[in-house]
Amino acid sequence: MKIPISSLHHFCSEAMTRSGMNGDDAKTVADVLTTNDAWGIHSHGVLSLRQYLNRIRGGGVNARARPRIVKEGPGWALIDADNALGMISSCHAMRTAIMKARTQGIAYAGVRNSFHSGAAGYYANLAPAENMIGIAMSNTNANMAATGSRARILGNNPIAYAVPAGEEKNVVLDIATSAAAGRKIAAAGSAGQTIPEGWLIDDDGSPSTDPSIWPDHGALLPMAGHKGFGLAILIDVLSAVLTGAQISRDVLSWSQADPSQPTGHGHAFIAIDIACFMPVDLFRKQMDVMIRNIRNAPRAVDVERIILPGELEQERGEKNPQGVLDLPPYVMDSLEGLAKDTGLDFKSHLVTRQAAGGQSP
Amino acid sequence: MKIPISSLHHFCSEAMTRSGMNGDDAKTVADVLTTNDAWGIHSHGVLSLRQYLNRIRGGGVNARARPRIVKEGPGWALIDADNALGMISSCHAMRTAIMKARTQGIAYAGVRNSFHSGAAGYYANLAPAENMIGIAMSNTNANMAATGSRARILGNNPIAYAVPAGEEKNVVLDIATSAAAGRKIAAAGSAGQTIPEGWLIDDDGSPSTDPSIWPDHGALLPMAGHKGFGLAILIDVLSAVLTGAQISRDVLSWSQADPSQPTGHGHAFIAIDIACFMPVDLFRKQMDVMIRNIRNAPRAVDVERIILPGELEQERGEKNPQGVLDLPPYVMDSLEGLAKDTGLDFKSHLVTRQAAGGQSP
Repeated sequence: MKIPISSLHHFCSEAMTRSGMNGDDAKTVADVLTTNDAWGIHSHGVLSLRQYLNRIRGGGVNARARPRIVKEGPGWALIDADNALGMISSCHAMRTAIMKARTQGIAYAGVRNSFHSGAAGYYANLAPAENMIGIAMSNTNANMAATGSRARILGNNPIAYAVPAGEEKNVVLDIATSAAAGRKIAAAGSAGQTIPEGWLIDDDGSPSTDPSIWPDHGALLPMAGHKGFGLAILIDVLSAVLTGAQISRDVLSWSQADPSQPTGHGHAFIAIDIACFMPVDLFRKQMDVMIRNIRNAPRAVDVERIILPGELEQERGEKNPQGVLDLPPYVMDSLEGLAKDTGLDFKSHLVTRQAAGGQSP
Repeated sequence: MKIPISSLHHFCSEAMTRSGMNGDDAKTVADVLTTNDAWGIHSHGVLSLRQYLNRIRGGGVNARARPRIVKEGPGWALIDADNALGMISSCHAMRTAIMKARTQGIAYAGVRNSFHSGAAGYYANLAPAENMIGIAMSNTNANMAATGSRARILGNNPIAYAVPAGEEKNVVLDIATSAAAGRKIAAAGSAGQTIPEGWLIDDDGSPSTDPSIWPDHGALLPMAGHKGFGLAILIDVLSAVLTGAQISRDVLSWSQADPSQPTGHGHAFIAIDIACFMPVDLFRKQMDVMIRNIRNAPRAVDVERIILPGELEQERGEKNPQGVLDLPPYVMDSLEGLAKDTGLDFKSHLVTRQAAGGQSP
């Protein structure tokens, strides 16, 4: 169903301010979520706002949270998120890292007492506009096996980075450290499909191609075996051990746990200021060369184009100059539920505007 | 064949000083290489020294190189390696990052005009003794496909990290961003075995289970598909685009290229000083908890133990209190060739001492 981004943004902001959040925070969260939808990442867009606001009503997330720096140095900061929505604390922390990197060349900002932050790529991608390289990480609740375990023992902790280019698009990678995302497995289960070996183990720790056991049973497998397992540990160290956040199995699920309980997520952000090292124009040109060398490499049989990380997502955003999103039905269902929860008129906010948006040139 | 580490170290140092290196540099390189052998990583130990010194004779590597900081700020440094062996420039750069992190919390050191640095884990693991987290990266010559390409277009650029624990061992991960290492494929080829799909593509870009095509044909595949591809790009950005080193396909092979040509490798190192964030003892205790939670997770069927990254390697080092290494035949062959190349008496340095080492308690 087609919805103008501006209407969607307004609707989401309204839902948040009605839930006790101030206008600035609501705008920040709506920016993050609608951008993810515009990039086609509907799993990390407005879909989850209903559940986020449920947690505010439950008390686990603090609508009036004021994330604050509790300790800092010239090149680093430790931020207590005050149980804010993860989008708020993550934007705050990435901007803190960017500000400090401006004078220090590189800076780290860690966050504790936070919540699900969604797509880490959004935060990393705040850096290129500042002529910086951004790296964003978060831990998450234990949904993944260690290599050799049959239990969920750590999260499929995501890592993202963004690097500015010149004429080419920013290179933006945003990945979880599991072989496949849980939602991808759940989708295969709903569709009655099997999944490739290597995504999931059953409760004995044996490989399973049956997605229907998930999410009640089984565990995600790390990407590339011990490599993904090891990278997930590093992300937990930088996001949680170093920040005082909950560590791996002590993080609660943002979607499943008792909504009165803070989840305790931790995040980590690094910014590197390119201008310290070389003229920014030269860096951007070198990135263009690198990107074009890769894109123009001889292609494998049946491959039409070689795609750089984040290229498709940014294309989706750019190919949408009128700012109209075609949201999948499950997202619309969630928004309708959100409207009910918050007493908003779904039709007047989204369905009517959808028509208006559709009519505009 | 069993050799005392001290004899091996002495032999390697001698070979290097005879090749024009000063004693300090020779010691640094011998420390790196023999430690890797002691950890059981024979692929990145003394095995390659013969080829390294061949490149010194050829002129591509500078025996008298003086890596120097060419640009720096409080939290970063850019180092020109002066075509030194990668072990020398990498130790220099990691120590520079550690020194700067002491006052800044986090620091980055990038290196250009360098050479193959071997196992990145060694450099990362310089940080824990300083109560720091270390991250080490390097680019390498193009041996890997991009997702969708059929050509080698970027290196299987390695990344390593090391995190200190308390009573437990440091967590040390050292991985390449390809699904499997080229030497693993070559070994399968020598043994007449097939390899799993997902390691290699042929010259059409089709999956190949025939290792015999490598290294003359085909390309390594990234670990976890687009995820490893994307991480390899980030490593190239931090190691090369930001430092002015050769970028991806412009890096020469340290083992195959004309030995008169500098390879142009770049590296990147990050150190984070734990004491800025929390008492080091508390951090180390938290790491112990995390490590034990993972180790004690319920195990999959037929799995005897869950192994943390770097645990086996450090055990190998510790289980060897007399410092005697059992080097595989192909390493001994290389050392014998090295002795011939440098006019050293292989028997008196290694074979005789091997007997002496064997006799000592």
